[in-house]
Formats: sequence, C-alpha cells, structure tokens
Amino acid sequence: MHGLIGKMKAAPGQRDALIAILLEGISGMPGCLSYVVARDPADADAVWITEVWDSVEHHKASLSLPQVQAAIAKARPIIAGFDTHIVTEPVGGHGLSV
Amino acid sequence: MHGLIGKMKAAPGQRDALIAILLEGISGMPGCLSYVVARDPADADAVWITEVWDSVEHHKASLSLPQVQAAIAKARPIIAGFDTHIVTEPVGGHGLSV
Repeated sequence: MHGLIGKMKAAPGQRDALIAILLEGISGMPGCLSYVVARDPADADAVWITEVWDSVEHHKASLSLPQVQAAIAKARPIIAGFDTHIVTEPVGGHGLSV
Repeated sequence: MHGLIGKMKAAPGQRDALIAILLEGISGMPGCLSYVVARDPADADAVWITEVWDSVEHHKASLSLPQVQAAIAKARPIIAGFDTHIVTEPVGGHGLSV
C-alpha cells in the first residue's frame, strides 16, 4: 500500500471552503482505500489529509480523474501553501476499504 | 470526530514485531472509525499511526480495553520512543467505518 500524510494551508478564512472542495472531489477514486480530511485545532488555516492507496500508480492516476482535476482547479485560488508531506507504507489496520 | 497522527520509534530491528502487536490489538474498538499502521520508508525504525474516532471519550476508553492493555504491555519493551503527536478534527472522507 501507499500512504500520504500532508498538511495544507488555506488562505485566511477559507479553510471550510477548501475542505468542502476536497470532500467533493474524492468520491469514486479507484484504488483509494482511505482519504480523511481534518482540521488542525491548533492552526485556524491548516488542513490535514491522510490517504491510503493500494498502489502508487492508482494515486498518480487519481490526479487525472475529471472530478479531481475540477477540485484542484477550484481549490487552487484558496490554497496558501503546503507544509508537511510524508510518504508512508501502510501495512494494515481498520477502515481500509475500496 | 477526533483524530490522531503519531510517529513511534521501535527498538532497532523490532519494527515488524511492533507493527504485528499493534495490528493484533486494534480489532473491535468501539467508536474507532479508522486506524492505519504504516512503515516510514525513510526511517527503518519508525511507524506512523493515523487514527479517527467518533469522540475523544471513545479513544480514551479504548486504552482500558483488555486487548489494548495486552498490546501495550507486549509492545512497551520494543518501543524506543514517540516522535510526532498531532491531534486533528476529522470532518469527512472515505474509509471511515464503525
């Protein structure tokens, strides 16, 4: 499996709008086993995204899906930047579903 | 929802043993929506754990469950330390299941 843990900063006051766009874009992504969007309670503009994919290839391919392309285009103006970006190798657990 | 992103270090050479113990201990935890255990490809002793709970209370209560207590006791001798510990507020996504 292929995992990502990332922190993204929204433009000031735009976090909820950014989260709504992220949640719209993620349905029906082949090979996506988990995709969780979370607020950072210690940072009013920060969003954490944790992802698990069955393969690197499916994650890469997801970036070309129409709904993901649309979400990226819509989100770009309200993304202030990217912080943490960690690649992991998930081995198991609970809540991994196709 | 209540989320945790944590990095733990195993004693040298004990990462796979630690992961096996973690995966044994997590089945049937009330209120646990997601619990993913992952290797860090950049650090041979590091394990990432990402968790989503329906509430802080269920997460706290999980630490008293017999199988979790057993896993903690078994894992303690091969845990070298804890690094990152981030609390999040998950708002949605894919792979959140009771």
